[in-house]
Amino acid sequence: MGVRSWLCGIQGRTFLSVKNNMKAFSTTLVVLLFGCSTGNKEQAPDRFDQLFSGKMKMIDLTHSLSADSPYWPGDAGNPFKYDTVAKQPSGAPSMGKYSTPEHFSTHIDAPIHFADHQLSVDQILPEQLVGPAVVIDVSAKCAANPDYLLTSADVTDWENVNGRMPEGAIVLMYTGWSKKWDDYPAYKNEDAQKKMHFPGFSAEVANFLTRERDIKGIGIDNFSVDAGAADGFPAHDITNGAGKFHLENVANVHELPALGAFLIVSPIKIKGGSGGQVRIFAVIPD
Amino acid sequence: MGVRSWLCGIQGRTFLSVKNNMKAFSTTLVVLLFGCSTGNKEQAPDRFDQLFSGKMKMIDLTHSLSADSPYWPGDAGNPFKYDTVAKQPSGAPSMGKYSTPEHFSTHIDAPIHFADHQLSVDQILPEQLVGPAVVIDVSAKCAANPDYLLTSADVTDWENVNGRMPEGAIVLMYTGWSKKWDDYPAYKNEDAQKKMHFPGFSAEVANFLTRERDIKGIGIDNFSVDAGAADGFPAHDITNGAGKFHLENVANVHELPALGAFLIVSPIKIKGGSGGQVRIFAVIPD
Repeated sequence: MGVRSWLCGIQGRTFLSVKNNMKAFSTTLVVLLFGCSTGNKEQAPDRFDQLFSGKMKMIDLTHSLSADSPYWPGDAGNPFKYDTVAKQPSGAPSMGKYSTPEHFSTHIDAPIHFADHQLSVDQILPEQLVGPAVVIDVSAKCAANPDYLLTSADVTDWENVNGRMPEGAIVLMYTGWSKKWDDYPAYKNEDAQKKMHFPGFSAEVANFLTRERDIKGIGIDNFSVDAGAADGFPAHDITNGAGKFHLENVANVHELPALGAFLIVSPIKIKGGSGGQVRIFAVIPD
Repeated sequence: MGVRSWLCGIQGRTFLSVKNNMKAFSTTLVVLLFGCSTGNKEQAPDRFDQLFSGKMKMIDLTHSLSADSPYWPGDAGNPFKYDTVAKQPSGAPSMGKYSTPEHFSTHIDAPIHFADHQLSVDQILPEQLVGPAVVIDVSAKCAANPDYLLTSADVTDWENVNGRMPEGAIVLMYTGWSKKWDDYPAYKNEDAQKKMHFPGFSAEVANFLTRERDIKGIGIDNFSVDAGAADGFPAHDITNGAGKFHLENVANVHELPALGAFLIVSPIKIKGGSGGQVRIFAVIPD
């Protein structure tokens, strides 16, 4: 081999080596940039921007309040009353006043509702009122048995499909009852002894959720987190006792995915109140 | 020059060239990755995740409701009344009911309030109730003149500092009145003829905001978006007439930046209501 061909050999290996290095670098660069680009604002809109520009899908989990809304039978549950103070020419109210029980229609139970020395509704911090929704659909079981009680097995079944529930979850039990909202007799579902029959959380699952998981609160699409036929209010005692809130008469839960919605829970801020009407928005990123 | 030194020269230039290329590549890589890393979830937490994990700063712009809350003088403004239905051993209410005017304490005026055939409170879409806050602090002018009226010049002054207001803004006028909340006489500030004196939006700025800018609503930290001494309710007529909502008696506006906060406005959902109590949360990303 002459000097020239030996030299070309060196140059060739050198350039080959350089070329390979450059190729490796380029590949790394492309991979890294491609990885980064999935977080690029121009290519995938920021979820926060989407929410506050009004471009994210929002579902209102709140029933409208009216004198026709279903209410817990008895004096304490006496219904919402609206008085028109002034009207528009069309007859629509331009000013009104109203009276209502705190625990009426879509509402929150503050922890003080069933546990002394716990927080009243105005004391719950805003940061405790936002969180990921965990939606456990037991509507088929509830259709077969209106006294159905949610169990920890339902929760672990959910987790087997969706993974362990996120920290700070708001756990919504979907019973199918919200679809009966416009049919008061079906919604309260009283027997001959005027005992109501609708599903709820068992004491067992209330203990499981408050002890074994990190939750902010629980909710249900009927009158109460305790079943209508429950002896006392065992779930109320446990979850309010653990400082957690309840959402009751939640609407439109069937529109939520099992996992992936996020809730904004906004209670009326009654000083020292045991609960009150709540507006609940679910936001669902793409 | 011998073959060896000539060869070394070639190798040297080759390696120098390679080294420079690699350096340029590395620099490019670092710059690009550094640019990307600002959007990297691990290095800069996603604002949406921060919000819903409860890690984002939230400010409650809502006064607590009680019989002691300031109210619009006269029969229509008669105050909030709370009745305890059941108590905890400590004496705290475990169940209650209440009555209130819709337009009392921190509340929303639905467009129907001052404009027939506009939306009632339950009809305002959730997407219209979230948006960036534009906070115009005219508290110094209002301290000097309790009848001060916001002008479009105040808005353009704000824009000269903060840039053109974002689309879908909720424009909050900060008058300083919220700090008088616990002093009812100072809050209503009546003269000898019982006319109230507090600042508000001029008709001129109401026209400017609804015609020249893209807003979702306006708000103020006193009784009314119209000044206490206004002749009629010109701002109400214009903004409700344009289908925009008002937030009145907004709390804690002084805690917000001029730009950078985002609002979640959650009204009580009264069927056909002209307005109602509202919970307002401001979220402030880092």
